[in-house]
Amino acid sequence: MNGHVDVLDDARTIARSILEVVKREGRTSLTAPEARELCEAWRIPIPKEALATTADEAAAQAQAIGFPVVLKIVSPQILHKTEAGGVLVGVKTADDVRAGFKRIVESAGRYDSKAEILGVQVQQMLVGGQEVIVGAVTDPSFGKLVAFGLGGVLVEVLKDITFRLAPVDRTEALSMLDGIQAAAILKGVRGAAPVDREALSDLIVKVSQLVDAVPEIVELDLNPVFARTDGAIAADVRVVVDFEPKEARPRPSSDEILAKMNRIMRPDAVAVIGASAEDGKIGNSVMKNLINGGYKGAIYPIHPKADEILGLKAYKSVKDVPGAIDIAVFAIPAKFVPQALTEVGEKKISGAILIPSGFAETGDHEAQEEIVAIGRKYDVRLMGPNIYGFYYTPKNLCATFCTPFDVKGRAALSSQSGGIGMAIIGFSRSTKMGVSAIVGLGNKSDIDEDDLLTFFEQDDATDVIAMHLEDLKDGRAFADVAKVVSKKKPVVVLKAGRTSLGARAASSHTGALAGNDKVYDDVLRQSGVIRAKSLQDLLQFARGIPVLPTPKGENVVIITGAGGSGVLLSDACVDNDLSLMAMPADLDAAFRKFIPPFGAAGNPVDITGGEPPTTYRNTVKLGLEDDRIHALILGYWHTIITPPMVFAKVITEVVDEMRAKGINKPIVASLAGDVEVEEAAQYLYDHGIVAYPYSTETPVAVLGAKYRWARGAGLL
Amino acid sequence: MNGHVDVLDDARTIARSILEVVKREGRTSLTAPEARELCEAWRIPIPKEALATTADEAAAQAQAIGFPVVLKIVSPQILHKTEAGGVLVGVKTADDVRAGFKRIVESAGRYDSKAEILGVQVQQMLVGGQEVIVGAVTDPSFGKLVAFGLGGVLVEVLKDITFRLAPVDRTEALSMLDGIQAAAILKGVRGAAPVDREALSDLIVKVSQLVDAVPEIVELDLNPVFARTDGAIAADVRVVVDFEPKEARPRPSSDEILAKMNRIMRPDAVAVIGASAEDGKIGNSVMKNLINGGYKGAIYPIHPKADEILGLKAYKSVKDVPGAIDIAVFAIPAKFVPQALTEVGEKKISGAILIPSGFAETGDHEAQEEIVAIGRKYDVRLMGPNIYGFYYTPKNLCATFCTPFDVKGRAALSSQSGGIGMAIIGFSRSTKMGVSAIVGLGNKSDIDEDDLLTFFEQDDATDVIAMHLEDLKDGRAFADVAKVVSKKKPVVVLKAGRTSLGARAASSHTGALAGNDKVYDDVLRQSGVIRAKSLQDLLQFARGIPVLPTPKGENVVIITGAGGSGVLLSDACVDNDLSLMAMPADLDAAFRKFIPPFGAAGNPVDITGGEPPTTYRNTVKLGLEDDRIHALILGYWHTIITPPMVFAKVITEVVDEMRAKGINKPIVASLAGDVEVEEAAQYLYDHGIVAYPYSTETPVAVLGAKYRWARGAGLL
Repeated sequence: MNGHVDVLDDARTIARSILEVVKREGRTSLTAPEARELCEAWRIPIPKEALATTADEAAAQAQAIGFPVVLKIVSPQILHKTEAGGVLVGVKTADDVRAGFKRIVESAGRYDSKAEILGVQVQQMLVGGQEVIVGAVTDPSFGKLVAFGLGGVLVEVLKDITFRLAPVDRTEALSMLDGIQAAAILKGVRGAAPVDREALSDLIVKVSQLVDAVPEIVELDLNPVFARTDGAIAADVRVVVDFEPKEARPRPSSDEILAKMNRIMRPDAVAVIGASAEDGKIGNSVMKNLINGGYKGAIYPIHPKADEILGLKAYKSVKDVPGAIDIAVFAIPAKFVPQALTEVGEKKISGAILIPSGFAETGDHEAQEEIVAIGRKYDVRLMGPNIYGFYYTPKNLCATFCTPFDVKGRAALSSQSGGIGMAIIGFSRSTKMGVSAIVGLGNKSDIDEDDLLTFFEQDDATDVIAMHLEDLKDGRAFADVAKVVSKKKPVVVLKAGRTSLGARAASSHTGALAGNDKVYDDVLRQSGVIRAKSLQDLLQFARGIPVLPTPKGENVVIITGAGGSGVLLSDACVDNDLSLMAMPADLDAAFRKFIPPFGAAGNPVDITGGEPPTTYRNTVKLGLEDDRIHALILGYWHTIITPPMVFAKVITEVVDEMRAKGINKPIVASLAGDVEVEEAAQYLYDHGIVAYPYSTETPVAVLGAKYRWARGAGLL
Repeated sequence: MNGHVDVLDDARTIARSILEVVKREGRTSLTAPEARELCEAWRIPIPKEALATTADEAAAQAQAIGFPVVLKIVSPQILHKTEAGGVLVGVKTADDVRAGFKRIVESAGRYDSKAEILGVQVQQMLVGGQEVIVGAVTDPSFGKLVAFGLGGVLVEVLKDITFRLAPVDRTEALSMLDGIQAAAILKGVRGAAPVDREALSDLIVKVSQLVDAVPEIVELDLNPVFARTDGAIAADVRVVVDFEPKEARPRPSSDEILAKMNRIMRPDAVAVIGASAEDGKIGNSVMKNLINGGYKGAIYPIHPKADEILGLKAYKSVKDVPGAIDIAVFAIPAKFVPQALTEVGEKKISGAILIPSGFAETGDHEAQEEIVAIGRKYDVRLMGPNIYGFYYTPKNLCATFCTPFDVKGRAALSSQSGGIGMAIIGFSRSTKMGVSAIVGLGNKSDIDEDDLLTFFEQDDATDVIAMHLEDLKDGRAFADVAKVVSKKKPVVVLKAGRTSLGARAASSHTGALAGNDKVYDDVLRQSGVIRAKSLQDLLQFARGIPVLPTPKGENVVIITGAGGSGVLLSDACVDNDLSLMAMPADLDAAFRKFIPPFGAAGNPVDITGGEPPTTYRNTVKLGLEDDRIHALILGYWHTIITPPMVFAKVITEVVDEMRAKGINKPIVASLAGDVEVEEAAQYLYDHGIVAYPYSTETPVAVLGAKYRWARGAGLL
């Protein structure tokens, strides 16, 4: 390790000295010799080369470099070497090098008799191997990213490239080689030899370390890199620098975040600034939600004139309240916020819940900067502005002007947009999805997803965190905390503006720059985050993931009464990267005992449609008892012999029996039938089986999401 | 045209005479000279070549062919030409050809002094251009398919290839050039010149005509084809033949199908074979469904002993019934079917609705072949076996043992599986989706999707046809009829078994061979069919497509109260190939008059969240009135100022107003809010606006499906 560190220290020193020259000369990119020196310092393999002043010297150098070589005239006066007859490629022997040396020196002399000939450059000629690209870019939100792709049309036309946050370790770098569509090429196709994966991943690691260690390098391209069976060599290097570093968004420590967020999310005392007794006012809705929601802490209405609001003593200012206050919910127009926020600061309140709009979202960035400055000055964390507020059900807290919500459960959700927040509330109520929290983040002037992740990670009431977001103010901070949190609890993200058209709308909406979607895709995966593709995915994953136990292995078995559902469920398994277990002969025989002779063998287990409840019971019991099976997907077909609620109850019974014995596997179900299947699906969901009517895809997608998380968290 | 036909006639004659030799010699592929002759006959460009016996002749031939050329020794004794020094590539001048001729003849003489030298082959050398593949395969279901892809890794690793049913016309062939992921390469990247699209598509057309005209050619590969800026030349040709043609599935004429299907789907008299008075029996459920469903035609219970069943006179056999009968619904065990079916034939009944299972699906193929033979003998069309029956609501007909269904509407649905059929019924009832018909096809021993398409095309009660299928017994017949029907009415298909895992399950379920999914994808598109990716897609498309009027142009505008929904709706537009209209300045100004100053400009039109019903009304009215806008997507955000039902009613009002003026554009809506949005969505749906709660993706997907159909049908 020490050796490695020394190398890096030396390399850093060299990089710094190169950059000093570049900066002094006012350039934004490195010259070829500078780039070469940088690569050598960082042990990034580049073609070997040497300068020869005699034919014999050239031959000796070529011998040392290895054949074939390229010979190039070196003369300050000759810019167009080829035109001058000053280049020879593919020179294969020492004799040919000697002859070649003489030939190009003569040609150069004929081309320009006044040219000063410094010698001939002898350069390793790269032949064979697969052309790839290794590069680095600086993303406005994620910072330094390392990129890998194949050369030529694959990158240009198909955009087949993959990104990771820099720096990466060897494992991450190797994952990049598998992270492109055309990954099979690297393993060798048409009898071609595979590339040297160690060398190639090592190159990626070094590039990622270089851009991480030298912040001024904002772009770096090794293009092409010749990835060969032994080694990987960068044939061309381009380095772009920027000496004006961006101001970093302040990042409090995790302990600082937690201290504040605990007081904000679980307050003992809440002030409502702009509390009102008048129906229809936001300050009235907030008061009613707090009181009627069953919040047990102190509630302090703040109003310039009132003595009492909804039966509670009112104060002119938070500063007049005798006891401590944890959060202040703002229900006043934007123009009054700065003054009230200053008072909140003076009162040492931890969080300001800024419902008012009229800040950055309307184009008034100054107004927003003003309140951010006040928040920083007094160390008040700001939620919003331009939000609906938030819910935290373990405290019966509805700090919002929206409809109250009280179905307690294990899912914490957040949204950047109020509309999506309302959809979360409606969906949760409709599907009886229990939630621990629903949080509006709006303009994210201060509190953002990182703060919520830090809080929910240690929140005992929360098992899954689902977030709708349009941008990440500090993608790097988000990725850092998500990587940690997702090891413990599933994190689901719906990134809006993921397409170019969508991104344009995001930009007009929040003024946030939406990044390249592929970058989000790769970085979220790198951070262990489950990406939802649609609003319904976000909601269904939030609802279903905490209901399912974590699988202990990859073997999935489908048990279905409807062969047709079995086929669609199998399709869905492929779409969701689930592995249908190859059925062992003994297990196949065991299943066959319970099903009619014409039932289908293998996986799916097709019990056929006309079977009584006992057949479902017996096969599901076997599926749960056998250790080789790790998850079950059920396909139910509504018949008179096994009506929907009978199915739901028999499955619940056998699952409960097995749980009592300590067997707890994830089970999802697709229910095909008349409208009674809706009630049956809800019953199953209530009993820990993720079930959907009229859909084969959704139950499997939820199971797939649970698996993706478990794999990312290293539990599989 | 006549000239073209003559060419084809000659070409056919040449092909036949080549194949006679191949057949006589018991070969399964053509030799290189045969393949060359075939290509020449079909005007498929191949490299020019000639045989020279003197150096001067070689030079003259090279001159005629064009430089550079390849020279190859021609000698029956020399198989390894290169080893013998008998090949020269890249020969660029006449002098070099002369010298080369002498050199390789000498080399060959040295290599084998006894070899008989027939001369030197002078061949056009192909340089430059893009390597592509043009080929043809024979699919067990679709028959002859022509294929196009780029060469090398793109086809091998990325499977970037596209198929069409052969033969194709010029337009279809050109669509193939755009049908691959890497299509941009053909248009020229990195400053490369574009390929000659006319020449390349002409080559595809010719290959497709060749394999269509000569059924014995089961595989053909032109690989590589050099697609150049002027012309396209096949460098290598491989032709595989098969002289044992597959037996074709019988294809009645469209008139024959219609005559039968009209009687079957709209019967005046129905017999129930195995009718029963006993609750729980299938024959009892069928009787009750017919009677209670309100069917007005004659119902004849058939039972060996009973005199009367459920108040209707019973008969021992259909042959005892005095009047004519259109269909017989079978509710008897499989073993009794052949005898009863024979009687049905003798009675000249048009259709047998074969509910019983116990045929091919249980592995008993013989039993199925037996009933198919009886059906053919008596010209009785068979539906099933192994089905739930069918519903045809215009006749109040529930010829099924499932739950009755009576919500009349414009969607006709079919399923190959009973489970999926039950999901259709439950979904339809739950969402109030009106249907004209629901049909179970089961084992498809006879009646299949083609017959249904032919019937539904001319069925006035049907506006959209949605089909779940696992295989197509005769994909070519399906494609032929779908191509015609889809010009008139949208056809939606959910093809189960579309992934390799799924395909395996399909195989175990129905014994049907599932084809390559990409083939299905391309052929369904070529046939104008909208492919559903999931069961929910199939159901929602069936529900929504008939509700939406056909758009008159591509300009889509989003009007949203929730900026967050606007971003997600924009994402969905990209996913569904919808074009967000670039907002003209005057229209932008017109919208701005109705929205707050901080509302977002452009498209989406963000009216912001706090707006009253009039703002929704005014902006939607403008969107409907302006001729440049062809479709609207609405994003609603639940607020106290505009509650869900108020929104639903104000939108319905303005839409009805515009319809009264003859303005009828497709409108879809995404409703974000508390549970009241569910009622509002249903209200909107009932009034012709496709609306969904808690989803931004589904409404846009339905609009996208309508657009895909309209484009395919040539209405846009």
